[in-house]
Amino acid sequence: MNNSEILAQLTDILEQRKGAAPDSSYVASLYDKGLDAILKKVGEEVTETVMAAKDVVNGADKDKLVYEVADLWFHTMVLLADQGLSSDDILNELARRFGVSGHDEKAARK
Amino acid sequence: MNNSEILAQLTDILEQRKGAAPDSSYVASLYDKGLDAILKKVGEEVTETVMAAKDVVNGADKDKLVYEVADLWFHTMVLLADQGLSSDDILNELARRFGVSGHDEKAARK
Amino acid sequence: MNNSEILAQLTDILEQRKGAAPDSSYVASLYDKGLDAILKKVGEEVTETVMAAKDVVNGADKDKLVYEVADLWFHTMVLLADQGLSSDDILNELARRFGVSGHDEKAARK
Amino acid sequence: MNNSEILAQLTDILEQRKGAAPDSSYVASLYDKGLDAILKKVGEEVTETVMAAKDVVNGADKDKLVYEVADLWFHTMVLLADQGLSSDDILNELARRFGVSGHDEKAARK
Repeated sequence: MNNSEILAQLTDILEQRKGAAPDSSYVASLYDKGLDAILKKVGEEVTETVMAAKDVVNGADKDKLVYEVADLWFHTMVLLADQGLSSDDILNELARRFGVSGHDEKAARK
Repeated sequence: MNNSEILAQLTDILEQRKGAAPDSSYVASLYDKGLDAILKKVGEEVTETVMAAKDVVNGADKDKLVYEVADLWFHTMVLLADQGLSSDDILNELARRFGVSGHDEKAARK
Repeated sequence: MNNSEILAQLTDILEQRKGAAPDSSYVASLYDKGLDAILKKVGEEVTETVMAAKDVVNGADKDKLVYEVADLWFHTMVLLADQGLSSDDILNELARRFGVSGHDEKAARK
Repeated sequence: MNNSEILAQLTDILEQRKGAAPDSSYVASLYDKGLDAILKKVGEEVTETVMAAKDVVNGADKDKLVYEVADLWFHTMVLLADQGLSSDDILNELARRFGVSGHDEKAARK
């Protein structure tokens, strides 16, 4: 599967919901509640991620961990959108740190 | 910039460091310390993200928030790698939830 | 004011609610939901504490910080009770670390 | 053991260290680093508490959980001291919520 555009599409969705009525979607309701409500969700998802990871090492299915990390990434994307940023800013920062980019991907994989 | 391959490249790097000596890199040292050390870092980065976001609304530069969210995503990727998972699992889960995929990206943007 | 017995009384209350019907009180409902639900609340209260502290340095009233730390301590006490422990275990540990006890309190204050 | 004065004594210790050189004690170094460093420690201790609690239900000794909650309470007390507050403020708030006080302790235990 080609995952390359999923974050870009999700970013589009998050932008589109900025003008929506608070009761029209979960994301619109988070924007309406404001930054503290969004940060509270980010904090919650980390606790859930930590618990899910501890459960995995004790025999639980990995699906729960995937689910919780997806929740965490999703809510950080809502946070970024709320602050006029996006996952592109995060990917650029990661690329900068690790000296990688889309353009030299083949070379890096050698 | 084409960000589409950054997560894939970073995933490659995280896999390559699995066989490395603990003192050869930061990531190798985290693998060696084990799950609790990795989860502790994930928890730390969330607190830093929350503080950076609060600082932004009080006038601080957004760069710090980008930096902290990048740290958070990076350490969740180390967690995923440590557990035999990757960012692909997260992207697939996000795609499943939001009904998007790389293949119908153009349609979704209409 | 004599605060010395408040934690002891709260411990009594938390013990009494162990036998209660889940819908009879907030604490009884937390016991019924189990450890993960209690830990999730502990995690939430920390995020709220961090946000409240950042608000205080930006001019907000300190009452919110007191409220959130009280919430945090309260939910850790529910956690302790759920695991057959109590605030006495925490106070003993703190006394052990800092070389203090109720008995030599006067000496320590010299 | 009489635990009633431990928080009061610890509060005294935290106040005394306010005037100390940053390198004279751990607490003095935290005050010197400032609020964000203190909040980061509070956040860390919560992650450790969550992991320790999950370990207990998987057979680990409860001592680790006691240790981590003590760390969490201790660092919240440093936070309170840094902000001109103390555990008395927290105990008063808890007493207010639960309708208990040192003075009517006997009655409450009937």
